[in-house]
Amino acid sequence: MEKQLREILASGLEAADPAKAVHRFVRVEDGEVFAGDERFAAERVFVVAVGKAAGAMAEAAEELFGERIVDGIVVTKDDHHPGPERLETVYSSHPEPDERGVEAARKVRELAESLGEGDLLLALVSGGASALLADAAPPIELADLKELTGALLRSGADIGEINTIRKHVSILKGGGLVRLAAPAPTLALLLSDVVGDEPSSIASGLTTPDPTTLEDARGVLRRYGIDPPASIAEHLRTAEETPKPGDAAFEGATSVVCGGGRHAAEAAAEAARALGYEPVLLTTTLTGDALGAAHMYAAIVREALASGNPAPPPCAIVSGGEATVTVRGSGTGGPNGEFALALAVELDGVDGWAAFAADTDGADGSTDAAGGIVDGSTAAKIREGDIDPAEALANNDSRPALKAGGALLFTGPTGTNVNDLRVALVAGSD
Amino acid sequence: MEKQLREILASGLEAADPAKAVHRFVRVEDGEVFAGDERFAAERVFVVAVGKAAGAMAEAAEELFGERIVDGIVVTKDDHHPGPERLETVYSSHPEPDERGVEAARKVRELAESLGEGDLLLALVSGGASALLADAAPPIELADLKELTGALLRSGADIGEINTIRKHVSILKGGGLVRLAAPAPTLALLLSDVVGDEPSSIASGLTTPDPTTLEDARGVLRRYGIDPPASIAEHLRTAEETPKPGDAAFEGATSVVCGGGRHAAEAAAEAARALGYEPVLLTTTLTGDALGAAHMYAAIVREALASGNPAPPPCAIVSGGEATVTVRGSGTGGPNGEFALALAVELDGVDGWAAFAADTDGADGSTDAAGGIVDGSTAAKIREGDIDPAEALANNDSRPALKAGGALLFTGPTGTNVNDLRVALVAGSD
Repeated sequence: MEKQLREILASGLEAADPAKAVHRFVRVEDGEVFAGDERFAAERVFVVAVGKAAGAMAEAAEELFGERIVDGIVVTKDDHHPGPERLETVYSSHPEPDERGVEAARKVRELAESLGEGDLLLALVSGGASALLADAAPPIELADLKELTGALLRSGADIGEINTIRKHVSILKGGGLVRLAAPAPTLALLLSDVVGDEPSSIASGLTTPDPTTLEDARGVLRRYGIDPPASIAEHLRTAEETPKPGDAAFEGATSVVCGGGRHAAEAAAEAARALGYEPVLLTTTLTGDALGAAHMYAAIVREALASGNPAPPPCAIVSGGEATVTVRGSGTGGPNGEFALALAVELDGVDGWAAFAADTDGADGSTDAAGGIVDGSTAAKIREGDIDPAEALANNDSRPALKAGGALLFTGPTGTNVNDLRVALVAGSD
Repeated sequence: MEKQLREILASGLEAADPAKAVHRFVRVEDGEVFAGDERFAAERVFVVAVGKAAGAMAEAAEELFGERIVDGIVVTKDDHHPGPERLETVYSSHPEPDERGVEAARKVRELAESLGEGDLLLALVSGGASALLADAAPPIELADLKELTGALLRSGADIGEINTIRKHVSILKGGGLVRLAAPAPTLALLLSDVVGDEPSSIASGLTTPDPTTLEDARGVLRRYGIDPPASIAEHLRTAEETPKPGDAAFEGATSVVCGGGRHAAEAAAEAARALGYEPVLLTTTLTGDALGAAHMYAAIVREALASGNPAPPPCAIVSGGEATVTVRGSGTGGPNGEFALALAVELDGVDGWAAFAADTDGADGSTDAAGGIVDGSTAAKIREGDIDPAEALANNDSRPALKAGGALLFTGPTGTNVNDLRVALVAGSD
């Protein structure tokens, strides 16, 4: 089953491949662009590609539009894939914004403002775009933005709350990019690194109306007792609101998630089906403790073996989302490794199943492995390596344990990130 | 949907009703007894009913066998339903064993030893039987048994490990009852209060061969650093092994789980189907943190609403097993209340779903409610009662929060216990 699991993972990763995602969602015919149900005139196309996958997405756009692309800019992280030669690639800093990000934001802004009727803005957005564009609204300085970002990250505010603030201290975020480009329409293709693939949450909603308000942003600061730099406090009192759903600037705009956790999970489910396993796609938005998720998976695998519920074997239990490690010990390992090790411990000695858990970016937590790939014999192999798998789990020490069990899963950097993917195959014990 | 949820819960509880469970699994025709695929001669039937549901199970047996019951004994907990008048009912102590339990065990032993060829021992076993029969193997005294039990409960050993010890310091447990009754065959009907419904785990395996060994029992004591009373240490060194799978005494014996978590969950799933909800029976053996289980349920409900996975609405997500509360605060509430409150918080404001979580014995943890029944409006109702539902959850304080939201679920004592039952109905937002 290990080979089948690797095939299924490859299918999930392919569905999240940035270039393939662009090609899958956009078709160009006789000077018109088709994206889902929408149709755009595409005489003059301007490209703004931002994020860790900006280079690959921009190359796909070049393949699709060729000479119709009049101008464009690619903003990505150091050491990441650049865009096609014809477009300027700007490297900027992530996750801490820097001066290069200020300059990148200025260039994106100028390009958007230069558009007129008949032009199309093709926005290609992927994870990391929020930090790569340091687009603080004047007179907020970069130093103020950095101070605020640091305070937010330390405060315990969740990513949705942090983005509410980001949208309200920015020029481009919270739909600003689309408003600047209007009346030129924006076609935005989003590669989602956000659980749930909600467009207004991806890259702080560069291309979507903003359902949150200035008062929401002030509320987050109050809730976490953050005293922001004076320029930011002043901006949050006096700024114009971000564009809201229904805003006229969005009439000609479309944001479509071309790749995300759901695509990866659905592709994995279909790959499992093609291999003869009836897929049960539990959810694409699993969050919370990796150990709790593993408890549930173990109980489902046992049930499938015992009673054929929720599906009779051969079946595949599939889920996406992003689990977290609850720190109990001092070991090394990410949430996918912890999930895999927990499953190996709970189903120790049970025949007829195998599973993987992987971060789709290829790096589970801060490790060099994508996650783990385990079955009923993994725990025994770990013990043969003189490691007690249950003790390792109790110490959050999944990496050495999985290594001893030959159960680490490596993919290398995948060039995409749509969070985690977990698949358990249940073949039955026959 | 609340009315439908209550119907579904009632169906689950009915499947776990002790008397109905006996009637469902046993049929008497022309002096022969049919239980599943097995057939027994039933000229002379002797009843040993032990556990919290012993009275109700024995009454069902009286209805089935009438005058063919030659003798019998019913051992149950104080204040619990007695057996039929014709049989002696002995009350004993639970969960701490006492002298009455010693006497009850002696009577059961004498009855089993008195049987001969042509007799049938009908063993009716339900939760609590382990403690109610204080059947310490001589020369182990009750005081030694109590000391050992206390040390085990404080040690952190799990129930499987505790039962491994119990089976090896006992006369009746670990299959002893069947061996004493042989050559008379034993037909055992088990009402399971054990997650997974494994017969050798129910009531310390009174009627099944024991897969564990004396060495396993000694290993548990070593693992938890327990220094047992001298009589017990001596017994674990010198005693005869419990009967193992394949032992001749079990040739004529049958143990069948007539009611358990799986029956309740399957009945709930079928009741949901009858109401038009496609059931997804996730598992009957869920264990671990109630909050983790709620995370998973919330993610599944969201997915069903968003993409029709794992089943298109209307659908019902069903699970059994036994969740636990991870203590983080000082509030009141059991695992089912915590699960229900967590679901209400995570799916606050989301339309198209409703759910209950209930302990099938009618008492969630040490509360007087069985659990909670919630939907997307519950969190708002709790806030109207001046309680912050997320804060209450963080403080393990589900009971007052659910009360404020009108979301406590009451069944009263149900007379059975097959652990927890959780059902979420997803109707969709239309």
